[in-house]
Amino acid sequence: MSSQNPVFIPGPTNIPERLRHACNVPTIDHRSAAFGEIFAPLFPGVKRVLKMTKGEIVFFPATGTAGWEAAVTNTLSPGDKVLACRHGMFSHRWIDLCQRHGLDVQVLTAPWGAGAPAADFQAALEADKDHEIKAVLVTHNETATGVRSDVGAIRAAMDAAKHPALLMVDGVSSIGSMDFRFDEWGVDLAVTGSQKGFMLPTGLAIVGVSPKALAAMETAKLPRTFLDFRDMLNTNPKGGYPYTPAVGLFYGLGESLKMIEEEGLENVFARHHRIAEGVRRAVSAWGLSLCAQSPDVYSDTVSAVMVPKGFDGTRVVTLAAEKYGVAFGVGLGEVAGKLFRIGHLGSLTDVMMLSGLGCAEMCMADLGLPVRLGSGVAAAQDYYRATAGAPAEAAHAA
Amino acid sequence: MSSQNPVFIPGPTNIPERLRHACNVPTIDHRSAAFGEIFAPLFPGVKRVLKMTKGEIVFFPATGTAGWEAAVTNTLSPGDKVLACRHGMFSHRWIDLCQRHGLDVQVLTAPWGAGAPAADFQAALEADKDHEIKAVLVTHNETATGVRSDVGAIRAAMDAAKHPALLMVDGVSSIGSMDFRFDEWGVDLAVTGSQKGFMLPTGLAIVGVSPKALAAMETAKLPRTFLDFRDMLNTNPKGGYPYTPAVGLFYGLGESLKMIEEEGLENVFARHHRIAEGVRRAVSAWGLSLCAQSPDVYSDTVSAVMVPKGFDGTRVVTLAAEKYGVAFGVGLGEVAGKLFRIGHLGSLTDVMMLSGLGCAEMCMADLGLPVRLGSGVAAAQDYYRATAGAPAEAAHAA
Amino acid sequence: MSSQNPVFIPGPTNIPERLRHACNVPTIDHRSAAFGEIFAPLFPGVKRVLKMTKGEIVFFPATGTAGWEAAVTNTLSPGDKVLACRHGMFSHRWIDLCQRHGLDVQVLTAPWGAGAPAADFQAALEADKDHEIKAVLVTHNETATGVRSDVGAIRAAMDAAKHPALLMVDGVSSIGSMDFRFDEWGVDLAVTGSQKGFMLPTGLAIVGVSPKALAAMETAKLPRTFLDFRDMLNTNPKGGYPYTPAVGLFYGLGESLKMIEEEGLENVFARHHRIAEGVRRAVSAWGLSLCAQSPDVYSDTVSAVMVPKGFDGTRVVTLAAEKYGVAFGVGLGEVAGKLFRIGHLGSLTDVMMLSGLGCAEMCMADLGLPVRLGSGVAAAQDYYRATAGAPAEAAHAA
Amino acid sequence: MSSQNPVFIPGPTNIPERLRHACNVPTIDHRSAAFGEIFAPLFPGVKRVLKMTKGEIVFFPATGTAGWEAAVTNTLSPGDKVLACRHGMFSHRWIDLCQRHGLDVQVLTAPWGAGAPAADFQAALEADKDHEIKAVLVTHNETATGVRSDVGAIRAAMDAAKHPALLMVDGVSSIGSMDFRFDEWGVDLAVTGSQKGFMLPTGLAIVGVSPKALAAMETAKLPRTFLDFRDMLNTNPKGGYPYTPAVGLFYGLGESLKMIEEEGLENVFARHHRIAEGVRRAVSAWGLSLCAQSPDVYSDTVSAVMVPKGFDGTRVVTLAAEKYGVAFGVGLGEVAGKLFRIGHLGSLTDVMMLSGLGCAEMCMADLGLPVRLGSGVAAAQDYYRATAGAPAEAAHAA
Repeated sequence: MSSQNPVFIPGPTNIPERLRHACNVPTIDHRSAAFGEIFAPLFPGVKRVLKMTKGEIVFFPATGTAGWEAAVTNTLSPGDKVLACRHGMFSHRWIDLCQRHGLDVQVLTAPWGAGAPAADFQAALEADKDHEIKAVLVTHNETATGVRSDVGAIRAAMDAAKHPALLMVDGVSSIGSMDFRFDEWGVDLAVTGSQKGFMLPTGLAIVGVSPKALAAMETAKLPRTFLDFRDMLNTNPKGGYPYTPAVGLFYGLGESLKMIEEEGLENVFARHHRIAEGVRRAVSAWGLSLCAQSPDVYSDTVSAVMVPKGFDGTRVVTLAAEKYGVAFGVGLGEVAGKLFRIGHLGSLTDVMMLSGLGCAEMCMADLGLPVRLGSGVAAAQDYYRATAGAPAEAAHAA
Repeated sequence: MSSQNPVFIPGPTNIPERLRHACNVPTIDHRSAAFGEIFAPLFPGVKRVLKMTKGEIVFFPATGTAGWEAAVTNTLSPGDKVLACRHGMFSHRWIDLCQRHGLDVQVLTAPWGAGAPAADFQAALEADKDHEIKAVLVTHNETATGVRSDVGAIRAAMDAAKHPALLMVDGVSSIGSMDFRFDEWGVDLAVTGSQKGFMLPTGLAIVGVSPKALAAMETAKLPRTFLDFRDMLNTNPKGGYPYTPAVGLFYGLGESLKMIEEEGLENVFARHHRIAEGVRRAVSAWGLSLCAQSPDVYSDTVSAVMVPKGFDGTRVVTLAAEKYGVAFGVGLGEVAGKLFRIGHLGSLTDVMMLSGLGCAEMCMADLGLPVRLGSGVAAAQDYYRATAGAPAEAAHAA
Repeated sequence: MSSQNPVFIPGPTNIPERLRHACNVPTIDHRSAAFGEIFAPLFPGVKRVLKMTKGEIVFFPATGTAGWEAAVTNTLSPGDKVLACRHGMFSHRWIDLCQRHGLDVQVLTAPWGAGAPAADFQAALEADKDHEIKAVLVTHNETATGVRSDVGAIRAAMDAAKHPALLMVDGVSSIGSMDFRFDEWGVDLAVTGSQKGFMLPTGLAIVGVSPKALAAMETAKLPRTFLDFRDMLNTNPKGGYPYTPAVGLFYGLGESLKMIEEEGLENVFARHHRIAEGVRRAVSAWGLSLCAQSPDVYSDTVSAVMVPKGFDGTRVVTLAAEKYGVAFGVGLGEVAGKLFRIGHLGSLTDVMMLSGLGCAEMCMADLGLPVRLGSGVAAAQDYYRATAGAPAEAAHAA
Repeated sequence: MSSQNPVFIPGPTNIPERLRHACNVPTIDHRSAAFGEIFAPLFPGVKRVLKMTKGEIVFFPATGTAGWEAAVTNTLSPGDKVLACRHGMFSHRWIDLCQRHGLDVQVLTAPWGAGAPAADFQAALEADKDHEIKAVLVTHNETATGVRSDVGAIRAAMDAAKHPALLMVDGVSSIGSMDFRFDEWGVDLAVTGSQKGFMLPTGLAIVGVSPKALAAMETAKLPRTFLDFRDMLNTNPKGGYPYTPAVGLFYGLGESLKMIEEEGLENVFARHHRIAEGVRRAVSAWGLSLCAQSPDVYSDTVSAVMVPKGFDGTRVVTLAAEKYGVAFGVGLGEVAGKLFRIGHLGSLTDVMMLSGLGCAEMCMADLGLPVRLGSGVAAAQDYYRATAGAPAEAAHAA
């Protein structure tokens, strides 16, 4: 596969030069003052991205899965009840993780393609008179279906039910790309990683922790050491780390935060929306539909494109890789074969997106789908032309 | 301008990761044996690309302009007569260089868009009964007009005229991308650089020198030191260099030659032709024409697209840069404003090309040209689909 | 601190150019065949370094602490008894981890500076008639004290006691630098990381798992998801990964294994021993002694240098960092202030080591310790001169 | 040779990480506004390093040799007389270049180890009643002998002789490392390159041109195109370049200038002096002497160490490379075999220098020279200890 083509998977995302440089550092002594100088600005920087003013940020040299695990093990005890909805592969996996850790998961379901159903959450919470449910889990952006759930609505449901459970949100494929409001939504644990909106290599799990979650930490009995918030909170404020940190990624995250602030956080969201909307217009021009059921749940980071019945969507992905050297995402779980996914997050331009759409068209035509060459590209061009501002400056590492 | 978008200028070209890594080396002692180990394989490697079996290769830490100058100053003397044709900005500049160095240039002319006229060369050579003409200069690929001249036909003209002049060829934007036959065409001096077909940063002038040119060197009186072949020929065979070499670019060239050999030289040419042909089909779908007058002179490395009369082609280039962060080439000299140029050489894929074509379409539409969005992309897709093999493997530096 | 000086901390180690390049890759699709091609050779490669022929290797995008946790949680159940010795900060931390995970740790003790006491292990195991002890934990190289324990002797003690417990070994700061014999020593779980002998950035926990440990996995009840062996074993053989892998580090590990094999594993060990021995001769010339009590426990990756009573060894480390821009390691836990540590593992040459020794001498002289300038350097030079072979070839990434 | 060891050649110098990153950029369009933004700040930046307020700076994608040639060909005509002194290999080579270009060189001589003799220059200039001498050439730092000449004294000699010749200075191995006063010394042409004090890869020739030299350009008849000042002066002010520029090196030079300004130009000179003085104390402790005849001509960028009669100094260099993987410089020309050279310029720390001195000691001892191990290191340590301030901050590219 040509390393010159961009990737169109829903993460890890294309890494800008500037971040490639920033991560590629010689070894420094992580017990020296130099480490603290790199580390300290990351806390307020990430908080700004999360729109979070209270609580703490913890960083683990790990992945989003570890972030899910850390959220759960640092705040809950074996046998605790949690409420979650399964409506895609990633919400499914978080539920599975809870079950492996001995939690009692009350599982709501929704169609793969729908958002997390606030009304069902509210009903379940109202039925829980004794407040046995200790945490509510929401997947902000279901990467498997291209669905963004309304976290604010879930918070409203919790408030309406006057339920004191913690609100845990998987923001791995949304944070840094789509609006996330930690404070406003009353999020208690927000999980993300380095390799999506932050445009970095895989290797950092990032968790935002509310004061309420910090309080829960004191009584949580699930065992943890590598992922223990307490060791982080005891050492981080002094520029320390409980074990060896991934220093290169911290340099990279510092630079990523600078890039985001230079572009402007709301501009970053707007850019993601604009590129995504072009993709959606292309899909429509192809005569196809999204897995996401309605515009209010359309994700701005990934589009899952339904293929005609009887056609295996995975073939598009395989052909793109083998014939054109381009990476798209396959359908997972319940929607395996029924769709293919176009990732459009992180460091991406409208012009790069045209090459992804153009490639998808070629693949679909190659495979006999009734898609007219250039049709989706033209629809996207039409939208991009009308909405383009000046491109962001080439921000060089220097 | 977004550093994530590829460039579509006719050089310098997009530098593959693998070559970026290869060039980026710590300082080594260029007087050590290590230098010789890097340097030695470059000579046979470049000869294979030139299809050259006799003579010598010299490398200067400089650019193609220096290559032109070295070809001339190492083989000619003040007042010597040379024959050349002006039919584009780069052929013009080489003529200008000769004049600055006190040569007597007999200038043929041809339309900008035509190739070097073999018949005119033959007539001039036949008229030169006393063989005052010491060298014939040909621009293999006129980067300004997207025209490839028939060097073999020029050689045939020289042979028909039984003329002993040296044949000097500017292959800066052709060598490594289009077929070049040093031996077969009886080339005496072939000039190229690192930043085009070799996909490297700017900074190496590379000159192939025939045995006949080496003989001419003995009597050439034009002054030169930095660009003196003799110092190179005296030191290179022992792994030495007359001054400080650009070691990083030599590492890079070694890796570039490996990449070319892995892909296969003929496959590299075929890839360039295929991508170029897609561009030409797009141009045709747009209802536009090339500056190149006929298919036999179409360049496979750059296409110069004529814009409608009264429209300033530079506006396409400016808008692409400012609105979309994409680089195309402007018209130069006689064709300034009359065209814009799409570079398609070096490390490029069909999918990357689609983004360039898509961007050009958006710009032309933005500027009110009667180009239908998606039309050129579709024409290119149609051709690319039909002709795609498996993409070359991602060849990583490791 | 000057980024041009090497670091002399006991890890992370200086990262060679070649590995810096190898890790610094553009994003690839980790679900593509390309990923499998990078991933597959790592398994036999790491096994060769571990001298391991049976069992499995698992790789987590995490650190050595996660490796400890994975070893324990994948093979044991809450309340299980384990036997370990506390004789340094890192053995202490592993014990602490076990206790946090609800294990019943029978803690032996030895002086900080001594190796793990095989006789005490044997006695404890013989006393455990009912085989309640499920695992024996050994720290192969105590990074805090510069002590290498005799894992083979622990195995012999277990065999003598005819005890069926699993043998878990922390090889984080030994594997890849000092001889490790997984098969011969009957190791069941060997833990290491990317940032020591493998000369890579932090971010990979690597665990070797014996068939016996794999069997224990089936009944282990400690909860784990991110660090679950089972998900790895279910996906890795098909080139898959249960979540997003740290692809750059896998490229890097592939290249690191190549570097180790090019130098020769035994040569790597010999180089570490030679550089370490020079350091020890310097320490002796300074009139100082090591924390390690006797030559049989001297570590070849880190030397902990005892400072005179009443002097705070941390001052050497602080001064080196502030005045000379050089990183050494401080004393930790029981030996805080009593020593400073010189790391000498990974990508290091004798000449680089001289600069570290020269810097330490300057610092000690600055702080009034009775150390003659040049004395330690001379002792090391004397040894290095006598034992030098040809330096390893500059192995460039190209 | 180990790529982890620093080099101790008198250039190219060790390239700091930050500059490695800065040079390693993707291709940009050199005809775009982005290029001008990178290019423009280089002119005032280099002027500050040269202590130059009037005149122009020109940059060629070439080396110092080209800089020499450009200085000569842009200001002189065939047959012009120039005055120069041969007292080392590099002053010799510049003389040779002039002769190749048809200039009439009046050659003064001085011992290899002496500076340029101001009195002899004055005598020659006074004897030149008709002002036939058009230029005086001085090598500020003779890299072959480690001798710094007093350019101010040459200017005084010219003034005393009331001679109107141009003053051309080779500052390749001094500028950016030792004080250079373009204005104060009345320099007309100052030549340097990227790979010494600017700590960059080889590939830029940099020439400072006084208003008087610019005037001379108008009448200069030596032919030149690649190295023509006029094309630069016609295009550079508008952000243009007459041919393809070496963009990566321009990015690098911008960052290099930032590094120099961050450290402070006078601090950079002081650091070079301090490191050099440590080397000189080591040489003295070894019982050896420098090629440079007296302290007033000691170079702060390179020390040429005389070896005992009958001993071949090249053996030290060869052994260092082969046995220890360290690069020193050999003797050249008249002093071949009589000395070896230690380069100590560019990005270097005192601690790095200790490893170079330690290596040199090992080599000399290996070869039977009566040098006590550690003696030179100790002398340098003693000086470095007494003179160390805080090390410069690790300035990372991010």
